[in-house]
Amino acid sequence: MSELRIGVVGAGLMGADHIIRIQNRITGAIVSAVVEPDEGRAKSAMDHAPAAKWYPSVEAAIADKAMDAVLIATPGQFHEPVLLPALEAGLPILCEKPLTPDAASSLRIVEAEIAKGKQLIQVGFMRRFDEGYESLRRLITEKAQGELLGLHCAHRNPSVPETYHNDMLIFDSVVHEIDVVRFLTDSPIETVEVKHMKRNSNNHSGFSDPILVLLKTNSEVLATVEMNVSVKFGYEVKTEAVFENGIAEIGRTSGMTTWFNGQVATAEHMSFKTRFAAAYDTQIQRWVNATKVGTIDGPSAWDGYLAAAAVEAGIKALNSGQKVTVDYASKPEFYR
Amino acid sequence: MSELRIGVVGAGLMGADHIIRIQNRITGAIVSAVVEPDEGRAKSAMDHAPAAKWYPSVEAAIADKAMDAVLIATPGQFHEPVLLPALEAGLPILCEKPLTPDAASSLRIVEAEIAKGKQLIQVGFMRRFDEGYESLRRLITEKAQGELLGLHCAHRNPSVPETYHNDMLIFDSVVHEIDVVRFLTDSPIETVEVKHMKRNSNNHSGFSDPILVLLKTNSEVLATVEMNVSVKFGYEVKTEAVFENGIAEIGRTSGMTTWFNGQVATAEHMSFKTRFAAAYDTQIQRWVNATKVGTIDGPSAWDGYLAAAAVEAGIKALNSGQKVTVDYASKPEFYR
Amino acid sequence: MSELRIGVVGAGLMGADHIIRIQNRITGAIVSAVVEPDEGRAKSAMDHAPAAKWYPSVEAAIADKAMDAVLIATPGQFHEPVLLPALEAGLPILCEKPLTPDAASSLRIVEAEIAKGKQLIQVGFMRRFDEGYESLRRLITEKAQGELLGLHCAHRNPSVPETYHNDMLIFDSVVHEIDVVRFLTDSPIETVEVKHMKRNSNNHSGFSDPILVLLKTNSEVLATVEMNVSVKFGYEVKTEAVFENGIAEIGRTSGMTTWFNGQVATAEHMSFKTRFAAAYDTQIQRWVNATKVGTIDGPSAWDGYLAAAAVEAGIKALNSGQKVTVDYASKPEFYR
Amino acid sequence: MSELRIGVVGAGLMGADHIIRIQNRITGAIVSAVVEPDEGRAKSAMDHAPAAKWYPSVEAAIADKAMDAVLIATPGQFHEPVLLPALEAGLPILCEKPLTPDAASSLRIVEAEIAKGKQLIQVGFMRRFDEGYESLRRLITEKAQGELLGLHCAHRNPSVPETYHNDMLIFDSVVHEIDVVRFLTDSPIETVEVKHMKRNSNNHSGFSDPILVLLKTNSEVLATVEMNVSVKFGYEVKTEAVFENGIAEIGRTSGMTTWFNGQVATAEHMSFKTRFAAAYDTQIQRWVNATKVGTIDGPSAWDGYLAAAAVEAGIKALNSGQKVTVDYASKPEFYR
Repeated sequence: MSELRIGVVGAGLMGADHIIRIQNRITGAIVSAVVEPDEGRAKSAMDHAPAAKWYPSVEAAIADKAMDAVLIATPGQFHEPVLLPALEAGLPILCEKPLTPDAASSLRIVEAEIAKGKQLIQVGFMRRFDEGYESLRRLITEKAQGELLGLHCAHRNPSVPETYHNDMLIFDSVVHEIDVVRFLTDSPIETVEVKHMKRNSNNHSGFSDPILVLLKTNSEVLATVEMNVSVKFGYEVKTEAVFENGIAEIGRTSGMTTWFNGQVATAEHMSFKTRFAAAYDTQIQRWVNATKVGTIDGPSAWDGYLAAAAVEAGIKALNSGQKVTVDYASKPEFYR
Repeated sequence: MSELRIGVVGAGLMGADHIIRIQNRITGAIVSAVVEPDEGRAKSAMDHAPAAKWYPSVEAAIADKAMDAVLIATPGQFHEPVLLPALEAGLPILCEKPLTPDAASSLRIVEAEIAKGKQLIQVGFMRRFDEGYESLRRLITEKAQGELLGLHCAHRNPSVPETYHNDMLIFDSVVHEIDVVRFLTDSPIETVEVKHMKRNSNNHSGFSDPILVLLKTNSEVLATVEMNVSVKFGYEVKTEAVFENGIAEIGRTSGMTTWFNGQVATAEHMSFKTRFAAAYDTQIQRWVNATKVGTIDGPSAWDGYLAAAAVEAGIKALNSGQKVTVDYASKPEFYR
Repeated sequence: MSELRIGVVGAGLMGADHIIRIQNRITGAIVSAVVEPDEGRAKSAMDHAPAAKWYPSVEAAIADKAMDAVLIATPGQFHEPVLLPALEAGLPILCEKPLTPDAASSLRIVEAEIAKGKQLIQVGFMRRFDEGYESLRRLITEKAQGELLGLHCAHRNPSVPETYHNDMLIFDSVVHEIDVVRFLTDSPIETVEVKHMKRNSNNHSGFSDPILVLLKTNSEVLATVEMNVSVKFGYEVKTEAVFENGIAEIGRTSGMTTWFNGQVATAEHMSFKTRFAAAYDTQIQRWVNATKVGTIDGPSAWDGYLAAAAVEAGIKALNSGQKVTVDYASKPEFYR
Repeated sequence: MSELRIGVVGAGLMGADHIIRIQNRITGAIVSAVVEPDEGRAKSAMDHAPAAKWYPSVEAAIADKAMDAVLIATPGQFHEPVLLPALEAGLPILCEKPLTPDAASSLRIVEAEIAKGKQLIQVGFMRRFDEGYESLRRLITEKAQGELLGLHCAHRNPSVPETYHNDMLIFDSVVHEIDVVRFLTDSPIETVEVKHMKRNSNNHSGFSDPILVLLKTNSEVLATVEMNVSVKFGYEVKTEAVFENGIAEIGRTSGMTTWFNGQVATAEHMSFKTRFAAAYDTQIQRWVNATKVGTIDGPSAWDGYLAAAAVEAGIKALNSGQKVTVDYASKPEFYR
């Protein structure tokens, strides 16, 4: 299987992050094109993508057959003029959320995709790939604790730029919960209502934050969303689910917590394969990277020897019941 | 940068796991060879590595120039006969722990590597790549809470095979803590002592589990290791560090917890970049994989439209103070 | 200081609980009268109050000068006819919440108390005495994390009797949060709104539970209250407070948790005086009770001797560095 | 039942604390005598015990028939000369731990008690009354998770006085774990061994802290005790119990935590009776105290009225589905 050549459109904060991700953590793909009108910004992002070529417009990249697929990472209001030519060219597209900022333009995209006859677009609602949301969805679907009755969501950011304004609370931030509530309940949102909490004086005066958004689904689940973008302590996205017979919470540091049958519980690992999955991946990736430049990046043969010497003493201690002193060779110059 | 061709030696539990990892989660490398005397086992592992060729011995793979680097995943007693020819061939090696089962053979490997004149071997003490151990090591090195005085480690497994015997408690399991204690304290282990806890009757009668191993480092840190391989509840590896002024614990489900200045604390995320790092990676990897087979694997353009319609209602609700009903187009056949 | 003679009015669930409390855990008071029309119920409650006399009406108890103070534990709709004669008699009153079920009758009580010229009534909003609410109020008042912006409250019960109906959700249960929100914010509630979550099918059909109550204070704090009386898992009352710079939560099993400056933290004890306060109290109370009937209720002198023998071995072990076997005298018949 | 007249021997830190406890939180007892050679210290402690009389010696208090029972709160080395005359006088005794500092003197006390023919002494191992130790003991006894195999105990203090020395680590502090290990395992301690952790430089040079004490019971349970009296962060006493099939931990802020069947869990409350037990007790005790001096100490009738007005609005909001503004009477001068 050859590598998928991805063109990244937009080399700002999100775009640059995706370029690093594709080059360093994703297998089977490379960044082949960076589409960005600002040449300086493009070049700086391309430091992490040596095989990529710069294009000022998506049309130029398409004309040059520079990519097999497109990842759109510009702000939402610039999505439509990129989506349409990319669709026209028949390219698969991962489009950062929102698809577009309003319903009419989104419907135009949908119609263009239908006209093309094939699903080419995936929207970047990445929470659906978060382990917490997946666990919670499973719990809801299994109905092991009865029907889901309500959701309490909170999205808390330490701060936003000066340019962030009221409507962005909805289309830039609450949009995640709007998708997640439907993903979790498998039911469309029927009504939306917004309440104001006391205004946070950390913000500029025209800005009304935090707010409480009430979403009601067709299945009668009530979701409350605290949208809060200037609560300095940190970044927290959590959801508490209220079932007929219990409660579950995701998004806090310890994985999904459940309140059922008189117990508050989190899951324990059952194998080293999950407990150390990330450590194994990191180890191998760093070793691959180091090997390519002719070095190692982790414990050496000397570390292996030192462990073997202590293991030998340990076995003697186990079998004798005595305290055993470890005997080491002196460290070769080679390993200093 | 072309892809590193890795030969995996041993296609048992660990070897098969590494093959899947290299093919599916590691960028810049492929499995080019599987070295395994048992042909059936080799072929089964190779289902996940379509580009790999089978070799019954490491010598055969070397002679065929089948790999740029070697990952050894056989049991420890079989490492030396693979390490020596691979070293001789000048191949970079990642060797699963232990390097070898005893000090004399480990020293032979060290000498062979020195003779070769270049560090080619990295040992698979993968805990050094675990976020918890890294955080704890940083805390120890910074001395923000004073000197480290002691460590309480526990390694708890739900079960082990019937063939697992007493000495393996040390060379197969405690060996991890032996490396980690040195990694954390940066000081060699001077003495080893073993105490018996009450025997777990879940085990066969000749087997003495759990045990308590006492390790004393040259820097006078006392480490206790509860080595416990049949405590059914789950898999837990944790370390509690005792400092002059506080305590820290890693390995429980909520990340590193610290007891300092009258507070028990864990770290909160400060950005979506860490909070959703895994979700972003999973999203892009699954999209890349799906794109190669001509599909999507996540929210569609229609999901994007539904969100846009609810966002539009949300903005109206924010600006009017009213409850707003969301207006949806009917779902096209195309997305059913 | 002689003991306060309390007359308990109502010997149902709450009244009986208060009688046991006053007799067994409160110092300086006894139950001298039980006012309860149902004689059987009264007599059964009086098993725990040997010095109490039974009265069918509060007027009878007042006429008999049977009490120095009154604790009213009947349902709210029966409070007014007890409060008025007790006030008239000049008796101090602790009245279970609610004072009365509606504003007009509460105002009549207020006017009667004013007419009497002295504050005689205390209302049983006992949450104000809960350590969690006290800690949270302190945090709000200190403004160390900025202004309080909102509160998310949840009141979760495993079940309620068949007779429980919709309005009771408000006057019997939400009434606690109504007082607590004012206690925490020190500001009156200006508006009330009620939203329905999906109905819990554990309940009888006419009953709409759970609900979400929105309370807005004069100080612009928005409080959400999930009132939920049939979520089987257990009994939970919690409040999450949203500040300008952080978050705090009370009511979960580990005491107040705070999210500030990138850390999620709970308080650690600083002394045995708080860590073992309850154990010391329990020990002494049980010893006092046992002593009165001529026994002990805890570790004996023989337990003290066994500890002394092991301590002696411990000191030898500390000073010698050796394992020391404890030497015990044989157990006297007397302690078997 | 008349009040038990307790003579407290020793008016230092512990004695003064017990005097306050008996007077303010224990029902059915008063402090009738304070036995303390230092008159100033005695008088200061007696501020909290108005009915107590001062005695310079226990013999004087006995001669004066000043008490029905004795609580000994002097340091351990002074217990024997108080225990013997109190026993001789036939008085029930609660003696702070240790009974005496060594085995021989403890045995003398045991013999004196036997000679008296009645168990009069209870030893102040108050941990047996701590909810955590009680829960853990129940879990051990029930064997629901198999046999207990080991215990990991930690006793952590922020600091000790300059006069605290090595042996006190054992007879003053480890003595608690010595009793607790026997209480939990119901088996005598057979051997004691002491290991040194790295010395904490917060301490004076002759003092070797922290230490690790290994206790082995007759039932083959191995208990490790980290005895650590200068780890500044706070006061923590915890025990981790290792069973054949799981783990349990007590002493951390959230109650007993268990690791069983793949879950980490704590218990949830099932009723307001446990959730708010302390709040109810505090409320009633403070009301009793306030009533005796003619005041209230909690929410007033006016608070009751304000809640009733908001409840009324809440019921309207529930039944109408509308936002309802609360209508308040103006606050009478009387309640300002």
